[in-house]
Amino acid sequence: MAKIVIIGAGSGFGRRLSMDILAREALRQGSISLVDINEESARNVGQWAAALVRQLGAPVEVKWTTDRREVLEGADYVVVAISVGGRAYGGSPYYEEVMIPSEFGVEQSVADTVGVGGVFRALRTIPEMLRICRDMEELCPDALMLNYTNPMAMLCWAMNEASSIEVVGLCHSVQGTAHQLATYIAKPYEEMTYWVAGINHMGWFLRLEWRGEDAYPLLYEASEDPETRARDAVRFEIFRQFGYFVTESSGHMSEYVPYFRKRPELLEEFNLQARRPPKEAPPSRWNWQDPDFLAEVRGEKPIELKTSREYASGIINAIETGEPFSFNGNVPNNGSIVNLPEECVVEVPCFADSGGVHVCVVGELPTQLAALNLSNIMVQDLAVQAALEGDKEKAIHACMLDPLTAAVCSLGEIRQMCERLFEAERHLLDYLD
Amino acid sequence: MAKIVIIGAGSGFGRRLSMDILAREALRQGSISLVDINEESARNVGQWAAALVRQLGAPVEVKWTTDRREVLEGADYVVVAISVGGRAYGGSPYYEEVMIPSEFGVEQSVADTVGVGGVFRALRTIPEMLRICRDMEELCPDALMLNYTNPMAMLCWAMNEASSIEVVGLCHSVQGTAHQLATYIAKPYEEMTYWVAGINHMGWFLRLEWRGEDAYPLLYEASEDPETRARDAVRFEIFRQFGYFVTESSGHMSEYVPYFRKRPELLEEFNLQARRPPKEAPPSRWNWQDPDFLAEVRGEKPIELKTSREYASGIINAIETGEPFSFNGNVPNNGSIVNLPEECVVEVPCFADSGGVHVCVVGELPTQLAALNLSNIMVQDLAVQAALEGDKEKAIHACMLDPLTAAVCSLGEIRQMCERLFEAERHLLDYLD
Amino acid sequence: MAKIVIIGAGSGFGRRLSMDILAREALRQGSISLVDINEESARNVGQWAAALVRQLGAPVEVKWTTDRREVLEGADYVVVAISVGGRAYGGSPYYEEVMIPSEFGVEQSVADTVGVGGVFRALRTIPEMLRICRDMEELCPDALMLNYTNPMAMLCWAMNEASSIEVVGLCHSVQGTAHQLATYIAKPYEEMTYWVAGINHMGWFLRLEWRGEDAYPLLYEASEDPETRARDAVRFEIFRQFGYFVTESSGHMSEYVPYFRKRPELLEEFNLQARRPPKEAPPSRWNWQDPDFLAEVRGEKPIELKTSREYASGIINAIETGEPFSFNGNVPNNGSIVNLPEECVVEVPCFADSGGVHVCVVGELPTQLAALNLSNIMVQDLAVQAALEGDKEKAIHACMLDPLTAAVCSLGEIRQMCERLFEAERHLLDYLD
Amino acid sequence: MAKIVIIGAGSGFGRRLSMDILAREALRQGSISLVDINEESARNVGQWAAALVRQLGAPVEVKWTTDRREVLEGADYVVVAISVGGRAYGGSPYYEEVMIPSEFGVEQSVADTVGVGGVFRALRTIPEMLRICRDMEELCPDALMLNYTNPMAMLCWAMNEASSIEVVGLCHSVQGTAHQLATYIAKPYEEMTYWVAGINHMGWFLRLEWRGEDAYPLLYEASEDPETRARDAVRFEIFRQFGYFVTESSGHMSEYVPYFRKRPELLEEFNLQARRPPKEAPPSRWNWQDPDFLAEVRGEKPIELKTSREYASGIINAIETGEPFSFNGNVPNNGSIVNLPEECVVEVPCFADSGGVHVCVVGELPTQLAALNLSNIMVQDLAVQAALEGDKEKAIHACMLDPLTAAVCSLGEIRQMCERLFEAERHLLDYLD
Repeated sequence: MAKIVIIGAGSGFGRRLSMDILAREALRQGSISLVDINEESARNVGQWAAALVRQLGAPVEVKWTTDRREVLEGADYVVVAISVGGRAYGGSPYYEEVMIPSEFGVEQSVADTVGVGGVFRALRTIPEMLRICRDMEELCPDALMLNYTNPMAMLCWAMNEASSIEVVGLCHSVQGTAHQLATYIAKPYEEMTYWVAGINHMGWFLRLEWRGEDAYPLLYEASEDPETRARDAVRFEIFRQFGYFVTESSGHMSEYVPYFRKRPELLEEFNLQARRPPKEAPPSRWNWQDPDFLAEVRGEKPIELKTSREYASGIINAIETGEPFSFNGNVPNNGSIVNLPEECVVEVPCFADSGGVHVCVVGELPTQLAALNLSNIMVQDLAVQAALEGDKEKAIHACMLDPLTAAVCSLGEIRQMCERLFEAERHLLDYLD
Repeated sequence: MAKIVIIGAGSGFGRRLSMDILAREALRQGSISLVDINEESARNVGQWAAALVRQLGAPVEVKWTTDRREVLEGADYVVVAISVGGRAYGGSPYYEEVMIPSEFGVEQSVADTVGVGGVFRALRTIPEMLRICRDMEELCPDALMLNYTNPMAMLCWAMNEASSIEVVGLCHSVQGTAHQLATYIAKPYEEMTYWVAGINHMGWFLRLEWRGEDAYPLLYEASEDPETRARDAVRFEIFRQFGYFVTESSGHMSEYVPYFRKRPELLEEFNLQARRPPKEAPPSRWNWQDPDFLAEVRGEKPIELKTSREYASGIINAIETGEPFSFNGNVPNNGSIVNLPEECVVEVPCFADSGGVHVCVVGELPTQLAALNLSNIMVQDLAVQAALEGDKEKAIHACMLDPLTAAVCSLGEIRQMCERLFEAERHLLDYLD
Repeated sequence: MAKIVIIGAGSGFGRRLSMDILAREALRQGSISLVDINEESARNVGQWAAALVRQLGAPVEVKWTTDRREVLEGADYVVVAISVGGRAYGGSPYYEEVMIPSEFGVEQSVADTVGVGGVFRALRTIPEMLRICRDMEELCPDALMLNYTNPMAMLCWAMNEASSIEVVGLCHSVQGTAHQLATYIAKPYEEMTYWVAGINHMGWFLRLEWRGEDAYPLLYEASEDPETRARDAVRFEIFRQFGYFVTESSGHMSEYVPYFRKRPELLEEFNLQARRPPKEAPPSRWNWQDPDFLAEVRGEKPIELKTSREYASGIINAIETGEPFSFNGNVPNNGSIVNLPEECVVEVPCFADSGGVHVCVVGELPTQLAALNLSNIMVQDLAVQAALEGDKEKAIHACMLDPLTAAVCSLGEIRQMCERLFEAERHLLDYLD
Repeated sequence: MAKIVIIGAGSGFGRRLSMDILAREALRQGSISLVDINEESARNVGQWAAALVRQLGAPVEVKWTTDRREVLEGADYVVVAISVGGRAYGGSPYYEEVMIPSEFGVEQSVADTVGVGGVFRALRTIPEMLRICRDMEELCPDALMLNYTNPMAMLCWAMNEASSIEVVGLCHSVQGTAHQLATYIAKPYEEMTYWVAGINHMGWFLRLEWRGEDAYPLLYEASEDPETRARDAVRFEIFRQFGYFVTESSGHMSEYVPYFRKRPELLEEFNLQARRPPKEAPPSRWNWQDPDFLAEVRGEKPIELKTSREYASGIINAIETGEPFSFNGNVPNNGSIVNLPEECVVEVPCFADSGGVHVCVVGELPTQLAALNLSNIMVQDLAVQAALEGDKEKAIHACMLDPLTAAVCSLGEIRQMCERLFEAERHLLDYLD
């Protein structure tokens, strides 16, 4: 009889996770509440989910609202997938977070993880995440937060420090990459085993096995084919140079390290582009007027039961039924990876059962991988401190330590770039001194 | 197609685990090899297992031998349940390990975990465990050892320090106690959830839930009934005084702490006895001439498929099939319990899947529980160092630090007691300086 | 121009430390303020110190008061040597802290460090220490507190957790024992070197050298002489059984471990007595009417400049002049001794210079010594938590884990004993739940 | 009666440290042995030291030799200041370590600490340092090694891992910088106090005080003056951007971070040059034919007693006399700085007395400083592992992680550069796989 709340339900996660949850028989009871500050989005997703519930004949209560406090009371699970201050990847302030660094020669690709874009996204998002935590502490202190919002590591870190709410951060990059690797070596995914650890978007396949045997030789062989290699140029380069495959796409990975985006010819060599987001973004990313969608909502067209690879429904199912479920979660390190800081947020193997979410001990990462993770973790650490203490100088230090930014700019340039962004996001960042 | 070897197969574990393994459909292939230094035991268990395989019509090869090296090559799993120097709980040297301390007023109950008995059992067993490890390093370096031999923590600790073989120590006390607790509170076991951590034989039910709610109030209530309380007097006392239930029986637990066995009237109050083992023990614990057993071996009587609560078959099944299995294992701490030493062996939640055995992060134990565990861990630490370095003085220090021994004797008496035991086990302990 | 405040100046530390300070030329300036809640004591010590200042012709301002807040403002050093609720070693509540355990067979010798006496002394003293800290946070937040009050480790631990004031705990047991050891081996103290670490009253001479060579063989030889051995029977026994000499006297040490005080014949064997404090103690320990003292105060008799071995004046001198001074201080562990908990208070080598007090890295203690320390540290930990959280149950757990108490009593008896003491000190412990 | 050996005595350290030692009265006994593989250098330094001893009339034995094994037996202190494979800063292989990276756009300034130059210097020097350790383990296992050779952190780290010899690494950058800071703020050095910690060449003035008050505001003010700032442009920039002053000169510091040397205009802005070492270097750096020097050797001209700021003689004096001496030493971290790895080599406050060298607990570095240190420590870690395991790939990873190299090159370029250097130093690096 789980009570599930999805905040930021208009984001795509609303429909995807509702579907995943309702696809599991054991979860067809209790309630799903869909929250979005955009009333139109909340209503549309809500009506669609209600239609699905009707279609399944399941005794699940569906609610939608623009005010999370109306539905948080007594919640068991709170999924969060929000964007603060504008659309996640278009218009202000995202536009400035990409274009101002670009003026200084820093050409980010996604700008939502670390880097100047990641740091400012954290600075504008953390206060709202903490407000959600405060509401949860009051209305559902024992609920588990499943966070999908980026920058994953910094948001979870801040909440771990500043709230008593249990947070597990979820992403699809581990399982997605595992599927890609199966494709690269042309083996069935079901026959593969892996053990992945590191930080979100920069996790490492410490073990990759096909039928119980090391599959890295197969992957190396596959990478000898220029066509395969070109499909994932940065990650194959990382794999061949450092010995391990990484969990986020070549585009993403290229901006977490200093090697790929500092010179135009390198961008070209690795099939990379400079991000150019739209200056204005539509208020909602979805076309709620799509005839198929409308037909589904009206019950005139059956909704196809198609589940995703997201972990959320598996975790909820494990806790509700006791059937163990294993996944990679973003959790406080606490010694799981011994050569990363105790208090940082790592993405490591976890499993869930009726006792909740349990984190596995990983041990030591190979030094070169720990070094690459650390170069990002130090940025996260300073950005989180900046947000929690309202300390602008620490935010600037965070950007100064970002590997790509530091590879391109001088300290003076980075400070200037930060000042430009503080100015551009003044309305969101006035809590900084 | 797992290749399984059971060393010490005449011990009862041979039949029990063979049965558990063969009861799982997915494991009805590969081979089971039964090793015992007693030829009669090896043969009897082997023939019985072969009869079971025939009865099931399973393509499993069954072998038996007195020489483990004949069957270790290429093994995937090696179960170890041995006794070194005599029968596990009767005759020499066990007899002396109980009776010499008794002369000094130390009345042990089982004498196989810590205490003077546990320390000397470790001193005489560790060298043989390491010889098994050496054989495995040579013949099956990637095999997983599942150890059932006591003293669990000291043996595993010594092997972790001195061998590259992966060892997981297994015991039935966690699951056994969980069943008992369900009985005490009169609830179905299936509706209970628990989270247990600590050290072998002194693990703590950190969380005990019935239908998702704290079940400790129910247990407290149950403990108000004098009859229930008398059934498990020491553990209920520990529970009421320190706030948590412990994993080994009242008899065992009473000898790990200084509170219960130092005065005759306390023994009586808590329904405890002084151990009085037989001076001579039969060469084998089993009656291989039992007519039912013989009929089973000859295939004249069908063997009933009755499985135990032992974890071994569940772990093997999880690794072979990928179906997750959760259990409590004895593994190197490595930060799982932050307020116990990094290098000690803890018994903590683990789970197994196709990637092997994974250890969960536990965090901090309540201080009083950590203190009770530490009082035993320091004994283990010194005993393990004594065995690995061949240092007699450290063995004496181990006994001096044992809580019960220290509560009863002076330092001089403990040293004298140790000297008596070194003398009695000279033939087994000549590797000590 | 140091501003020094001594709180509890009537305790003997007032005169001794005033003398030590004024004996150092570099410190003959600034001010010394003597505080005691007993007006008579404060005035007498104050007048005596003023007489000494006049005799030296030093430009030092001397003040005395019963109200510390009058003199704390802007202080640089605050020495604390207080007793809360009664005289330190006579009358209530000390009387009950010794005699109630005695009824249960626990015969303490000093009862001011760990044990039931130490725990209850901590419980009644910590609140006042924290009130002093609050006053200092307000009036002299940068002052260094030099604490001489017992139980040293628990008080310092509590202040470290709950106040921003920098505290260094000081004792004379290290330097005192070093002098004794020189006597035992009949060598000049000046030719000896030592390196001592552990916890207060249970520090270990990890290295003892005479003219750069290991002096432990000489000490062992000395201990062969029955007369020498009888002078320090417990410590020589510890030395011979565990390999290292300890810093507190035989009387003290005997109550920190389970080996010496649990049976009458052991008390006798090691020349130990059961403590029998006076039921009523005089309001002040000093005879302020002593004619010599009065003559000194009136300036009719010159005060002899005789310094003690206390570290306080050396530390103040080092900070004021920059001349390095090395000593053993009680400070938060923070990894100095790696096999003791991070947050406990250890007594380790420190040095002071113009930059303040610096703590040395010690590394690992021999396991048997760490085990003995830990058996006391767990008691301290629980007692400190009890005081800071107002949690009676933790105070009881602290007593249950005390090695001597646990060697003598059952859990039920310990709980009963604690309840008796809570009752006896109700007026001092009403802050516990 | 100290026995002192100086290995690499022709390096300048031979004369400087002999002078420092002989300038201290307490050290004018025992022996000084001067070792250099260049016979001419050894003889010249030896004769000069002998002349000084004669002039002082001190009972000190002076020896010189090309074979360290002749003089190591029973040594108390072994100073090491060597260069392996060529002159320290001229000719091959130094020439290639600067010029090959330069071809790839990496313009180092000193190339002896981290960076590609530092890594290869470590790879060629570590084996010889370990050979010295082996000789010491055999001939003077209790001697203290005082290492002056660079790259300091990597060499000490390798020796800590692979030898039982106690090593303290010494540098003059801390005390040198402290003198410069006194000049910048125009205050007498004697009135300043500082507390410095970090890693060699990148230590941080965590506290800088003048007469007990924070002197950083004065320094900030001084940095407002363009002329002062230009004298130390990189360090003032680091100070103003990150908040703390660093211990190595602007030239050095510029190559440890990615901010200053990646673009020509930045070199200019910060008054930096690209290093252009001589392709051929003279066999000895000293002109032994200098008439003044010859006159001193012949005793015709008195040698002026002029001491340096090097720590070595102060440490030896402290250990021999017991007079405490405080300094910054390069030692295994072991928790001194909690947010740097346990096993790395840190440069932290130490003090020496008759008990030897003691390391102070530092605690936590400000995050931005720890991040800068870590970016170098990860390089060191991999280079040390490469040398100890003979693993070429780890050496390449070390270079890939170097902040400046990573800011300039792609991974492919770095690998190519490394291969060029392996080729150029084949004769020195044939121990790598």
